[in-house]
Amino acid sequence: MPTDHPASDAFPKTARNQVKRMHERGCYARHEIYPILDAAMLCHVAYVIDGQPYCTPTAFWREGDHLYWHGSSASRMLRVQKPGLPVCLTVSHLDSLVLARCGFNHSVDYRSAMCFGSAHIIDDPAEKARALDSMVNRFYPDRAASLRPNTDQELKATMVIGMLIEDASGKVRSKGVADDEEDYALPIYAARFPVTMVVGEAEPCPRLMEGVTRPDGLSAFQPGRRLDDALLENQIRLYGAA
Amino acid sequence: MPTDHPASDAFPKTARNQVKRMHERGCYARHEIYPILDAAMLCHVAYVIDGQPYCTPTAFWREGDHLYWHGSSASRMLRVQKPGLPVCLTVSHLDSLVLARCGFNHSVDYRSAMCFGSAHIIDDPAEKARALDSMVNRFYPDRAASLRPNTDQELKATMVIGMLIEDASGKVRSKGVADDEEDYALPIYAARFPVTMVVGEAEPCPRLMEGVTRPDGLSAFQPGRRLDDALLENQIRLYGAA
Repeated sequence: MPTDHPASDAFPKTARNQVKRMHERGCYARHEIYPILDAAMLCHVAYVIDGQPYCTPTAFWREGDHLYWHGSSASRMLRVQKPGLPVCLTVSHLDSLVLARCGFNHSVDYRSAMCFGSAHIIDDPAEKARALDSMVNRFYPDRAASLRPNTDQELKATMVIGMLIEDASGKVRSKGVADDEEDYALPIYAARFPVTMVVGEAEPCPRLMEGVTRPDGLSAFQPGRRLDDALLENQIRLYGAA
Repeated sequence: MPTDHPASDAFPKTARNQVKRMHERGCYARHEIYPILDAAMLCHVAYVIDGQPYCTPTAFWREGDHLYWHGSSASRMLRVQKPGLPVCLTVSHLDSLVLARCGFNHSVDYRSAMCFGSAHIIDDPAEKARALDSMVNRFYPDRAASLRPNTDQELKATMVIGMLIEDASGKVRSKGVADDEEDYALPIYAARFPVTMVVGEAEPCPRLMEGVTRPDGLSAFQPGRRLDDALLENQIRLYGAA
């Protein structure tokens, strides 16, 4: 991790990225926001077609200040996402359920990030091929070179979308139970129930060729490990720390 | 679970809810879509302000064909969500990472649901109070009655949003590795890495009054249990199966 961050590490606060509700939970610095993004595989992308909002879950990854995701060329979202379509890409991690002594103070601990920008299609074939390799390698270190290469037809059938993060904000709650002072005297059960996304035992393909072993590049995905930790480790392995 | 479903169990396919990409993964029946919703605490809500899409993660719950969520009265999202603001509320569960023998066939197993409708504010005080109790009880059976009651100020500071699901679709992938037939002969590692959101050991509030024990209503949240299973159990306990 870099030990200090220049002023430019922070995104400017604008009308759209300013955290309004529970603003004390908000953050704007890249070194706070990017680890939230880098610990995830799935995001939700909001976009508008003819005034109708859509919210699509999809795999994504980050390179510097750019976000990428992909989909079939037939996808509704991507067909209309010609250069310049405004999108909001959001990542969230649920960290715990928080049971308080009154309904109002029930909550969850979480980390979330909202990124704003204009999505554009990556049309250049070389850039597209490179991006798709990056997608594989970002999640699974060193894997792309070990795979059967993409065919022209596969490349044609895939659309890669890129977006410069113009502004962004993060929001984090991690304090567990936080009741009104006078409520602590009430005989009511209160607790935090931590929740974590955990990697299970790998299920190798039953049709694996004899002698094929699990590559070292997948070492982050140990059974029982937190998925967010494994994903963050692999992001840092490829791109360095945010 | 009901054993049969009338034709009206399915939402009509419309321009906005029709699954286009990988349409064979799509579903439109309530008994398929609702369990995806009911197994989640968090959703992502997409909405539009002045042409700018926003995607906000929030806790939500379902009662029949209605979805509810809440927020501070100060919230940007809720301030503009006067009756009739179109929203898309999406829920997704990541079930596994799928590593194939070529980049194109890399995938994830998942369950997702997109719900379309117009969000409106629940203004009636009695309806609002009832909804907030339902929110607590939907996640934590029988809990609302055991809590310090909401104050008028808390009720005023909270906005409850409701939405009739006008149309919706689900999308599910659960097949693990699915390579092109000829690729199975390649000496490349391929596997499914299951991922699950798991409940951890409860952390009781350190300031719990002496003698206060954990209520039976929280029995679903056993350490090690899948959160989606626990949430679905509690939904069915309060509202019955979809």
